[in-house]
Amino acid sequence: MRGAVMHAPGDVRVEDRPDPKIIAPTDAIIRLPATCVCGSDLWPYRGVEAVEGPSPMGHEYVGIVEEVGGAVRTIRPGQFVIGSFFASDNTCEICRAGYQSSCVHREPVGALGAQAELLRVPLADGTLVATPDLPSDDLVPSLLAASDVLGTGWFGAAAAQAGPGKTVAVVGDGAVGLLAVLAARQFGAERIIAMSRHEPRQKLALEFGATDIVTERGDEGVARIKDLTGGLGAHSVIEAVGTQESMTQAIRSTRPGGHVGYVGVAHGVELAGQELFFSHVHLHGGPAPVRQYLPELIDLIWDRRIDPGKVFDLELPLERAAEAYTAMDERRAIKVLLRP
Amino acid sequence: MRGAVMHAPGDVRVEDRPDPKIIAPTDAIIRLPATCVCGSDLWPYRGVEAVEGPSPMGHEYVGIVEEVGGAVRTIRPGQFVIGSFFASDNTCEICRAGYQSSCVHREPVGALGAQAELLRVPLADGTLVATPDLPSDDLVPSLLAASDVLGTGWFGAAAAQAGPGKTVAVVGDGAVGLLAVLAARQFGAERIIAMSRHEPRQKLALEFGATDIVTERGDEGVARIKDLTGGLGAHSVIEAVGTQESMTQAIRSTRPGGHVGYVGVAHGVELAGQELFFSHVHLHGGPAPVRQYLPELIDLIWDRRIDPGKVFDLELPLERAAEAYTAMDERRAIKVLLRP
Repeated sequence: MRGAVMHAPGDVRVEDRPDPKIIAPTDAIIRLPATCVCGSDLWPYRGVEAVEGPSPMGHEYVGIVEEVGGAVRTIRPGQFVIGSFFASDNTCEICRAGYQSSCVHREPVGALGAQAELLRVPLADGTLVATPDLPSDDLVPSLLAASDVLGTGWFGAAAAQAGPGKTVAVVGDGAVGLLAVLAARQFGAERIIAMSRHEPRQKLALEFGATDIVTERGDEGVARIKDLTGGLGAHSVIEAVGTQESMTQAIRSTRPGGHVGYVGVAHGVELAGQELFFSHVHLHGGPAPVRQYLPELIDLIWDRRIDPGKVFDLELPLERAAEAYTAMDERRAIKVLLRP
Repeated sequence: MRGAVMHAPGDVRVEDRPDPKIIAPTDAIIRLPATCVCGSDLWPYRGVEAVEGPSPMGHEYVGIVEEVGGAVRTIRPGQFVIGSFFASDNTCEICRAGYQSSCVHREPVGALGAQAELLRVPLADGTLVATPDLPSDDLVPSLLAASDVLGTGWFGAAAAQAGPGKTVAVVGDGAVGLLAVLAARQFGAERIIAMSRHEPRQKLALEFGATDIVTERGDEGVARIKDLTGGLGAHSVIEAVGTQESMTQAIRSTRPGGHVGYVGVAHGVELAGQELFFSHVHLHGGPAPVRQYLPELIDLIWDRRIDPGKVFDLELPLERAAEAYTAMDERRAIKVLLRP
C-alpha cells in the first residue's frame, strides 16, 4: 500500500509500505477513505521533536473494517468505524473513569501510520466505534475530525468546564482551538472569545459560535480578556497550542477559581509554581480521551447538528502529502484532508 | 501592646508595638486569647523568603471584638470571632464563587501581625465569623486551628476531590497535612494514606482518620502509593509542603484523571509541562479560601465532632515566641500555641 513517511524534519514522502496484517487477535484492519495531517505532526516536521529514522505518519482515521482478529467480538468487517490516537481496552479502571487515552493497555496508533491506505488498529473492540450505517460522503470529513481534533477540542472545553453562564476564551486558532469554540457553544457557554489574528480562522470561529474575537497576544491578549470580563478574567480558558507563551496566556486570562483546559501537547513548557499557586486556577488537560466522546460526537454529526469537517480547507490526494505538510506549516491551510 | 517581630531569618523578638487603631470604617479591633506560629512563618525564618526589615508576624487569629468602625454592620463588640489570613469583602464575584482568598479587595492580615495581644482586622463584616456564644476555653485551640491550618487542609481535600470510594494520599505531615487527613475523613474518603516518617505525627494522622502510613519519600514514596492502589495511583492527593520534591511526589502519586490539591505555598517549584500533560491529573490549589469554610468548621468544632486543636502539641506564653519558632523549625513541635 501507499503511505506517508517522515524521513527528517521537512522531509515527508509517500512510498510503498507493507500492507498491515493482523498481529494480535484483538486487532482490526481498516481501509481509509480519507485521512489527514494534524497540527501535532508539525512538531517533528519543524524539528521541535526528534525524528528517529523513517517514521510512518498519521494518527487520525476513519474507515471500513476489512478484517478482524479471532478475539474481536463487537467490530465486524464492513462496518464504518472511527477510533482515536491511543488504542484502549475501554474496560480497565482508568478507561471506565473516562480516561481512555491513559488506558493501562493503551497503544499509540500514530506509530502505525494512518496517513495510508490501510491501518491496523489494536484493541479493536475497545478502540473503534461504528457509525449507525455507512455514511454519505459529505459526512466523512466531519467523522474524521471526530477522531482527534474535534474530540480534543471537546475535551479542552470539558476540562475548562465551559457551560451555561460562563465566559470561555480559546487560546489557539488551529483546528483544535476552532473546534473547542464549537464544543463550548455545544456546552451552552454564554460568551466565547476566540483569540486569533488570522481572518479566515476568525471567520470560522464566528461560524462555530464565537461571540468575540481578540487579536492581541501575550500580556496584551490577557489585558483584553480582562477588559472583556470586568477585570476578572474568563471563567474557562482552553489552551490549544502547547507553548510557554500560550500556557502563560491561558493561565493569566483565567479568573481565580476558574478552569484552564489545556490540550496543546506541551513542548518546552515550564510552569512557575508560585504564579500558578496564586492564580487560583484549576488546571486539567493532557491527551484527550476522545474514545469517551465518540458515541456522542458521532450522533451529533450523524444528525447534522454540528459540522466540524469545515476545518478541512484543503483536500489533496494522499500522494501529495508533502504539500499538505507545507501548507499547514506555512499556515496557508488550517487542516488538510488526504484522499488515499 | 506586645507582639512578635521578625528582624531577620532566625531572629524573632517579642517587643512593644503600637496598639492597633481603627483606620478604615470597615475595620474591627480584636483581643486575642491565643495565637500561633504557622509552618509558612518558617519560610522567612529559614531565609527562604526575604525579610524586608522588622516584620510583625502571625496571620492566624481568634478573638473578642473590642471595637468596630462606623461602617461595620454585622460584627459587634463582645463577639468571639474567627477570620482568615486574607481579609475579604465576601460580596464580590470572586468571593461569591467561593474564592475569598482572591477577593478583589483582599488584604493580607499577616502584614498586621497576629502574634500579638490585639489585631486590626480589615473588612470585618466580610472577614469575620462569630461563634454562637463565647466558647469554653478548651475549644479555643480548635477554633484557632480553623483560622488557617484546618481551613487550608480542608481546601486541599476539596481541591483533591476527596470523597466516598476514593483513596486519598497526603504529602506532608505538618499541621496542614494532618488536618487534610481529618478533612478527607470528614469528606468520607474510603482510604487515607498519610506520608510521614515521624512517629508522633503518624500517631496523630491515625487519630485523625488515616488508614495507612507510608514512610518512603520521593520516587520510593510514589512506588509505595502505586503498590497500595493496584498500580494506578491514588484518586486524590493533597500536597501540603510546597517544595519541588513534594509537588513532584504528589503529581506522580495521582492516577490519570485523579486530582491533586496543593496548598503548600510553592517555593522554587517549576512544573515540567510535558510531564504534567501526560500525567492527566487535575491540579488545583493556592491560598485556601478559608472564609468559605468557616461557618461549617465552627459548627463541627462547636458540636465537638472534630478536634483539630490536637495539632497544638506545645503551648508557650507569647513572650517566648522565639522558642516557638525554634521548636517548629527543628520539628520538635508540630504547632505551637502562644498565649498573649
